[in-house]
Amino acid sequence: MGFPTDPKLPRRGFLQAGVGTALLCSIGGKTLVLDNASDADKADEAVRALRRPRAATATDPLDTMKFPTPQPQPGGVPREYWIEARTHTWDPAPLGRDEWHGTVIPKPRSFKALSYQLMAPGFAGAIGGPTIPGPMLTAEVGDTLVVHFRNGATDLGQAVTMHPHGVRYTPDYDGVYLGARTRAGGYIAPGEEFTYTWEATPDSVGAWPYHDHGPNHMLNTMRGLYGSIVIREKGAPVPDFERALFLGALSPAVTGRRRAFQCINHRTGAGNTPTLRAKVGQDVALHVFGIDDFFHDFHVHGHRWQRGGVPIDTETVGPAESITVRFREDNPGRWLYHCHVLAHQDGGMAGWYLVDP
Amino acid sequence: MGFPTDPKLPRRGFLQAGVGTALLCSIGGKTLVLDNASDADKADEAVRALRRPRAATATDPLDTMKFPTPQPQPGGVPREYWIEARTHTWDPAPLGRDEWHGTVIPKPRSFKALSYQLMAPGFAGAIGGPTIPGPMLTAEVGDTLVVHFRNGATDLGQAVTMHPHGVRYTPDYDGVYLGARTRAGGYIAPGEEFTYTWEATPDSVGAWPYHDHGPNHMLNTMRGLYGSIVIREKGAPVPDFERALFLGALSPAVTGRRRAFQCINHRTGAGNTPTLRAKVGQDVALHVFGIDDFFHDFHVHGHRWQRGGVPIDTETVGPAESITVRFREDNPGRWLYHCHVLAHQDGGMAGWYLVDP
Amino acid sequence: MGFPTDPKLPRRGFLQAGVGTALLCSIGGKTLVLDNASDADKADEAVRALRRPRAATATDPLDTMKFPTPQPQPGGVPREYWIEARTHTWDPAPLGRDEWHGTVIPKPRSFKALSYQLMAPGFAGAIGGPTIPGPMLTAEVGDTLVVHFRNGATDLGQAVTMHPHGVRYTPDYDGVYLGARTRAGGYIAPGEEFTYTWEATPDSVGAWPYHDHGPNHMLNTMRGLYGSIVIREKGAPVPDFERALFLGALSPAVTGRRRAFQCINHRTGAGNTPTLRAKVGQDVALHVFGIDDFFHDFHVHGHRWQRGGVPIDTETVGPAESITVRFREDNPGRWLYHCHVLAHQDGGMAGWYLVDP
Repeated sequence: MGFPTDPKLPRRGFLQAGVGTALLCSIGGKTLVLDNASDADKADEAVRALRRPRAATATDPLDTMKFPTPQPQPGGVPREYWIEARTHTWDPAPLGRDEWHGTVIPKPRSFKALSYQLMAPGFAGAIGGPTIPGPMLTAEVGDTLVVHFRNGATDLGQAVTMHPHGVRYTPDYDGVYLGARTRAGGYIAPGEEFTYTWEATPDSVGAWPYHDHGPNHMLNTMRGLYGSIVIREKGAPVPDFERALFLGALSPAVTGRRRAFQCINHRTGAGNTPTLRAKVGQDVALHVFGIDDFFHDFHVHGHRWQRGGVPIDTETVGPAESITVRFREDNPGRWLYHCHVLAHQDGGMAGWYLVDP
Repeated sequence: MGFPTDPKLPRRGFLQAGVGTALLCSIGGKTLVLDNASDADKADEAVRALRRPRAATATDPLDTMKFPTPQPQPGGVPREYWIEARTHTWDPAPLGRDEWHGTVIPKPRSFKALSYQLMAPGFAGAIGGPTIPGPMLTAEVGDTLVVHFRNGATDLGQAVTMHPHGVRYTPDYDGVYLGARTRAGGYIAPGEEFTYTWEATPDSVGAWPYHDHGPNHMLNTMRGLYGSIVIREKGAPVPDFERALFLGALSPAVTGRRRAFQCINHRTGAGNTPTLRAKVGQDVALHVFGIDDFFHDFHVHGHRWQRGGVPIDTETVGPAESITVRFREDNPGRWLYHCHVLAHQDGGMAGWYLVDP
Repeated sequence: MGFPTDPKLPRRGFLQAGVGTALLCSIGGKTLVLDNASDADKADEAVRALRRPRAATATDPLDTMKFPTPQPQPGGVPREYWIEARTHTWDPAPLGRDEWHGTVIPKPRSFKALSYQLMAPGFAGAIGGPTIPGPMLTAEVGDTLVVHFRNGATDLGQAVTMHPHGVRYTPDYDGVYLGARTRAGGYIAPGEEFTYTWEATPDSVGAWPYHDHGPNHMLNTMRGLYGSIVIREKGAPVPDFERALFLGALSPAVTGRRRAFQCINHRTGAGNTPTLRAKVGQDVALHVFGIDDFFHDFHVHGHRWQRGGVPIDTETVGPAESITVRFREDNPGRWLYHCHVLAHQDGGMAGWYLVDP
């Protein structure tokens, strides 16, 4: 009994409750299990030892084929973003407690996180402080997203990338490390820059995650390298209230703590997770993503939404999937939103949703 | 090898097979892992030590806002129910064996369960014996569900609630314990009564769970505090054959046994789980719910149903989600229905579906 | 650190990462946990000790009811297949490495697998080598599938069956072992033959798995006894490019190795899993199935598809469920397809999808 960071806690029990989450990854020809901070150090070492992929040595002509950079469709525009990967200190529970259960979450809590920092044009300084998730990138059908990316996490000493979901891209803009078959955007070394160009096609409409897909993607995504893309129909109204909510555990390998924190947007416990505040009459859109290796089940008290014409109030969301929960607000009060997996919910994957009349 | 309750069984093996299910919960500022009956005792102690929430001390005006009790829409009616939470002894396998696999399920099997008991108006005595799930509450769009609830589980010595899905409710009728922010329906102490009023709105049509969401919700829901709500369109025909089926494991913390029982409606193994018996030509509706922390996959032999116009015969259902499997019966015989997670299926999450010509 | 078969690997770590997969099954009145090759031997022993089910001794008239063998609808035809269950040696990684991560997968890798072998009419010899999955059985609405099945795995010494999803069947053709209630197709002893007749009804349209559902179904399905059924509307066009992809782990009980291999079609790691090669302009259909006890999340780089009119690029598929990912190919290059559960993806559940211009 006691709080999870209590050193006397039966760690085995947490594992049995499905909330001790080791990470498994493959790096540089090795398959690793990351169960604590020291394992993470080994993964970082292994990935730093990788050499930059040479021009594809594979004999398949597809691996050396050239592709033109996509342009906006007639009437579309390029939407430019400057984003830098940066490390920083992150506290998953700035209040020091969970406002719902009253649980105290003792120090030390902070750890070295990694995130996509929104920058001013030309990388002329950060816009706002570090956020996890990274900025919401938005475009309309026919536009391109032109993302100038810099790997500013030089202290981490390893390549990272941006891999988008939902938008269309040619292989160079896939942002995935493929060993000897890696294309231009799949290995952005520390200090390097690369511009990704992605197309908002008619079948890109929706909310999508982007995340690291470099040679250490498992660990670096869990450290915070993820964000959202929202593509709308041309001229479609922007919701009055719109938020991206990423459900996932912070594992011991990332935090150095004894067990996982159940998080929303890298924060744990009501009051630390996003406190949402909307108003009766508003068009509300919550884009909900899975960002760990578990399946989650998103529930909002006092509200229902439609999926395929069927009313629901609890909905499964898997890793890297997204659901958009959208409704016209009509029910004032203080509500909970949470994952309905009870061990996740009571472990901190919950937050306040306040609706003013 | 041997039956799960065999004391020589390698418990670790069951954990590895994903069927040893500790519970994680947060009570009174502590996060607990419940792995056996003694852990459950500690959770009960912790929750008994909680004081009744005072009038909200939070400074947010939403926490003290008053809401009128909803009334039926024109043409709608109030549907009144009397329900009492009660403890009782529950045997998850009254036959003593699984009729499909022939497995003997030795005594002792019974444990102290907790359920929503349907009562006569004015709490004038129980209607029928204890059932898990609790009664199916039904209404049509425009009606209200008026549920007079009494916490009759005085021996348990702790507050419980009723939290509904799918229906509309104001904060007082949410039935959720929120610490200092708790509203009227979120803490029904032993011996107390409270009347919940919930609205059947057009987007409430469907099948929904209700369950405890009090300060010990994880443990008490697993003990049996759950049931179903079915909301129909005004005048919609009632299916000829309609059942609620809750898929979930009974964990060692609840039963005091060594490992989980894989259950449907708190019963394990064909012959103990509901034996359904329908007839060719009938309109059959099976409302299937997840009621533990796992995802399940509902399959009926010899039958298919539609989801979004697509035929399926196996469908995922997550915690507190529901699916309605509905078809016109046309295939006589003895059939199995089961979760298609094989460890769940072979662990007892299966039953007979008999169709007469 | 190191490759999973490294004997020094911390096995506990793999369990924590959710990739050590013991099997739980019930055989002959016993519930068994299969964690290694010796456990599998015990399951085989237990199932060999079963006697052939007698004519049903149950008193329910449904258990002895006779059903006529279904015939094709007017305009439909019987589609005949000859299939034999056979054991053979199977290498999950013929290349000896994972082409994406560069991981070496050392010998010994091969194990005794079991599969559905496509045979010439009258069982006049095998058509092609052993494949896992078994052959794709196809029919149009109104047809019957007439599957002549022989249990040729005499060395295994136990009954197996074929249980289909999606198609309509009478109880004798359900292919499920039910103990004393077993019908004709539910127990095909070594050396025996049985002809299953299944109907392609209007609500059978789609892709479906078939698999063993005999007395040792858990273990034998995991050994490789599974395949696909595709039912099309009458006259519907066959996709230009069509593949069945089964996502599932090969557990230690099956392979005798220390931990699970994360597989697609019983092969692990890009280059060993199916390398798909399509062409711009083609109508592409990927039928994706879950075939173990976990939920998976199928992602294809560079592509999106529709579900209920909503574009997606990552989709949940549970045990024995299927999804059909279908699109008009328009994006040349080398792409990855993989499960988006990161521990599965990095554990080998990934493959190449090559698109020629």
